[in-house]
Amino acid sequence: MPITVKELADICGARIQGGDASAPLHSAADITSAQNGQVTQLTNKRYSTYIKDSAATACFIAEDFAVENVPESMALLICPDPEIGFIKAVELLHPERTYSRTIAPQAVIEGNVTLGAELYIGPYAVIGANTSIGAGSEILAGVYIGKNVKIGQNCRIYPYAVIYDNVIVGNHVIIHSGAVIGADGFGYKFRSNQHLKVPQVGNVIIEDNVEIGANTCIDRGALGSTTIGAGSKIDNLVQIGHNNKVGKNVIMCGQTGVSGSCTIEDYAILAGSVGVADHVTIGRGAVVMARAGVAGNIDAGAQVFGSPAKDRKTAYKEQVAISKLPELLKKVKRLEEKIRAVDENEDG
Amino acid sequence: MPITVKELADICGARIQGGDASAPLHSAADITSAQNGQVTQLTNKRYSTYIKDSAATACFIAEDFAVENVPESMALLICPDPEIGFIKAVELLHPERTYSRTIAPQAVIEGNVTLGAELYIGPYAVIGANTSIGAGSEILAGVYIGKNVKIGQNCRIYPYAVIYDNVIVGNHVIIHSGAVIGADGFGYKFRSNQHLKVPQVGNVIIEDNVEIGANTCIDRGALGSTTIGAGSKIDNLVQIGHNNKVGKNVIMCGQTGVSGSCTIEDYAILAGSVGVADHVTIGRGAVVMARAGVAGNIDAGAQVFGSPAKDRKTAYKEQVAISKLPELLKKVKRLEEKIRAVDENEDG
Amino acid sequence: MPITVKELADICGARIQGGDASAPLHSAADITSAQNGQVTQLTNKRYSTYIKDSAATACFIAEDFAVENVPESMALLICPDPEIGFIKAVELLHPERTYSRTIAPQAVIEGNVTLGAELYIGPYAVIGANTSIGAGSEILAGVYIGKNVKIGQNCRIYPYAVIYDNVIVGNHVIIHSGAVIGADGFGYKFRSNQHLKVPQVGNVIIEDNVEIGANTCIDRGALGSTTIGAGSKIDNLVQIGHNNKVGKNVIMCGQTGVSGSCTIEDYAILAGSVGVADHVTIGRGAVVMARAGVAGNIDAGAQVFGSPAKDRKTAYKEQVAISKLPELLKKVKRLEEKIRAVDENEDG
Repeated sequence: MPITVKELADICGARIQGGDASAPLHSAADITSAQNGQVTQLTNKRYSTYIKDSAATACFIAEDFAVENVPESMALLICPDPEIGFIKAVELLHPERTYSRTIAPQAVIEGNVTLGAELYIGPYAVIGANTSIGAGSEILAGVYIGKNVKIGQNCRIYPYAVIYDNVIVGNHVIIHSGAVIGADGFGYKFRSNQHLKVPQVGNVIIEDNVEIGANTCIDRGALGSTTIGAGSKIDNLVQIGHNNKVGKNVIMCGQTGVSGSCTIEDYAILAGSVGVADHVTIGRGAVVMARAGVAGNIDAGAQVFGSPAKDRKTAYKEQVAISKLPELLKKVKRLEEKIRAVDENEDG
Repeated sequence: MPITVKELADICGARIQGGDASAPLHSAADITSAQNGQVTQLTNKRYSTYIKDSAATACFIAEDFAVENVPESMALLICPDPEIGFIKAVELLHPERTYSRTIAPQAVIEGNVTLGAELYIGPYAVIGANTSIGAGSEILAGVYIGKNVKIGQNCRIYPYAVIYDNVIVGNHVIIHSGAVIGADGFGYKFRSNQHLKVPQVGNVIIEDNVEIGANTCIDRGALGSTTIGAGSKIDNLVQIGHNNKVGKNVIMCGQTGVSGSCTIEDYAILAGSVGVADHVTIGRGAVVMARAGVAGNIDAGAQVFGSPAKDRKTAYKEQVAISKLPELLKKVKRLEEKIRAVDENEDG
Repeated sequence: MPITVKELADICGARIQGGDASAPLHSAADITSAQNGQVTQLTNKRYSTYIKDSAATACFIAEDFAVENVPESMALLICPDPEIGFIKAVELLHPERTYSRTIAPQAVIEGNVTLGAELYIGPYAVIGANTSIGAGSEILAGVYIGKNVKIGQNCRIYPYAVIYDNVIVGNHVIIHSGAVIGADGFGYKFRSNQHLKVPQVGNVIIEDNVEIGANTCIDRGALGSTTIGAGSKIDNLVQIGHNNKVGKNVIMCGQTGVSGSCTIEDYAILAGSVGVADHVTIGRGAVVMARAGVAGNIDAGAQVFGSPAKDRKTAYKEQVAISKLPELLKKVKRLEEKIRAVDENEDG
């Protein structure tokens, strides 16, 4: 269902400059590829050069964004936050799939399950006894939910995500396929030359507005809970071990691993493939750069790099120094020779 | 079902000191959070400070563990191995979920399948032809088991674990959700500018008492078997490539990857996110520290760190040296200047 | 069904030397373990020593491969490409499982689905509306395929692989269990102290002859497509973020992660646990060695190592230099002392 440039501008609170306000828009695209009938955005100077040849019908842009050579056919949509304007455009032009408000006859729902209004439960989903699911949630095909689980309202859980017993999930939580929430933590005691399993009887608590990526694993607490704070976003293939306390609005990128009993404070950012040893605290708003290995506490607001992770500037200096090291070895050798010569000179 | 301090002490062979032997216990908790009605443990001096304010009703502790300021209300449960005592307490107070001894009508069981006594098979499980499952095993909802598979007794396989054809699993094996056992190894030959698939016709053999974490992958042998020895414990998101021979009682922590045709000897420990190149032998009891990259053989009992992995002490020394490197560059520059001055002095 | 040495030689275009051309072969094995009745290969000098004690009935070998002490009972199968000969032998002697050309009654197939001829669809598979599946494809038990998906001909998709809406898959594609194709990319904008989800409305396009490993994740484009070129092979537990363009015949080994908007050109090889930052180009045929962290563009044909990744030779030199660094620190200290002594001497 196309909308006009003017309709979109009105919805997004944008001012139109140039172009054709009545032109129809059918989809959104990046500025590198947008064509006639598409809306795009320009928010990064790196991409300014693409505008002059762009056939896009409209382009979100900030009031103070300096741009030249805008094609006559392009309507600029000027607004205070063009990225948010563009997100609205994408949502309008590419509406999400909706799921019917039905419970598939092939779903298995055990005894004493409490189901809210307006649910979708897909075929072959399995919902364990004493579980409750809040209104408006979408439990897609084949999702497995154990016993005594509590799922909030307006969640979406994608096919074959698995939620073990006793897990608690807040509202507006998205869990992607293959994620496993609440499997046993990795705990053993070594006795009589064998690894004896420590019972893992805690649970996982996921607060509101969390998103969990595909094939990510969040283990249950040994005792007590592993917790993920409200608004935190966790990418694919992330491992979060038992009894970690992840704060609010934390970002964890793909393939990151947090071993166990760590505290990741609010607004921390763990980039891709970061590793965190156990019992570590990562302070509020700290940034752990990609592939860093964190073995000790990180201060709030710190930025760390490398493995073992260090202050970013220190680590960068060391990296530069390492690149000079082969040459340094030669220099020192020459110095030794000179000193030897001086010594001999003096002795002579 | 609460039990009294005395009942628990009797079961665990512990001696009660102080507190109220008749007090009821309903659950277990860490010493940092245990409340009235809970049993805890104190086995690490780091946590000794928590005891004086703890409201726990009982606390496992070793005979020779020096502790002060024990609250009057707390019963110490003194025994030779308090960690094992506490594990027993957790098992008693937090009994595992039991599964009915039934086969769900929604399970698909192909021809010539041999099922032992006292099995649980959940809804939507699929069991391939000519497969056998030993007595007492629990095959949860949606588990996929291929053809010609042999599962031993008293195993538990969690939802949506996948076991490809011809895999052999011993007794008392636990496999968590999303684990994939027996997918094709990653083998190609490069011919005519294309990667030609090498058939992967071997299998995976998992011995008794192994535990395999969520979303872990163990590939089948190209020819012959990939094997996991008895008592080995493998965490989540681990990759074990084709034809690896993993010994007995090996530990592999989360996100570790072992490429192929390696030998990991008994009692080796691979910490989190370790990587192992192909055709490598890691000796008996060796410890590979977190995030190490192992490219060559590791001696039995060795401890290695870093990437490329080196003897732990050597690697630590190098890490310390790297932290001094930026300063070293300056020192050498000063030395060069001095030497130049000496030279000029002498020339003069 | 055993075949004779002569039959195998004829099929593979090999010349028989020694042994018994009429001897039956029932299976294939590595030269380290092959027994009577088995065929093996010798293509690597490292394994030449095994031949003299081998009981194998036949052995593929190249014309110019120098070998001594071949047992009298062994027939050498001499051919220009013994590895390909051996692959043919494995395929003959270990035929792949075939799936009946049926659609399981427990599969859920939504409206307007187009199914090619000669399909296998296993129990509990779910196929969304408006999806098409090409002739000869095998959709195993529990595969989830969303809406508007296009699967080509002769694909095999293993149990519990998940394909989100709008994904396009070519012909002869293999997707292993637990792989998740088309989940949302990881994109947020930070506003009002919260991470606001950027809609992920693109898709994934997988071209012909691609193989995707178990539990690998390939995210959909935010806008536009994430693409995997023809003939590329991707191992287990790999993360491919949104809007990556992976070329043809690319190799990505286990646990590698590519963040987003990268270009991986044809024939590039990413070894195990490689990480690639966003917006990076890895040139045609470049080799990124295991565990490398790539933060900038890599030239075509380059070989890089380490994290941050550098030219292989440079990185190796630095590694060697680091191993000499603790000694270098001592040397410089001695030099400083000598210089001080020279200084004092001169002052004196």
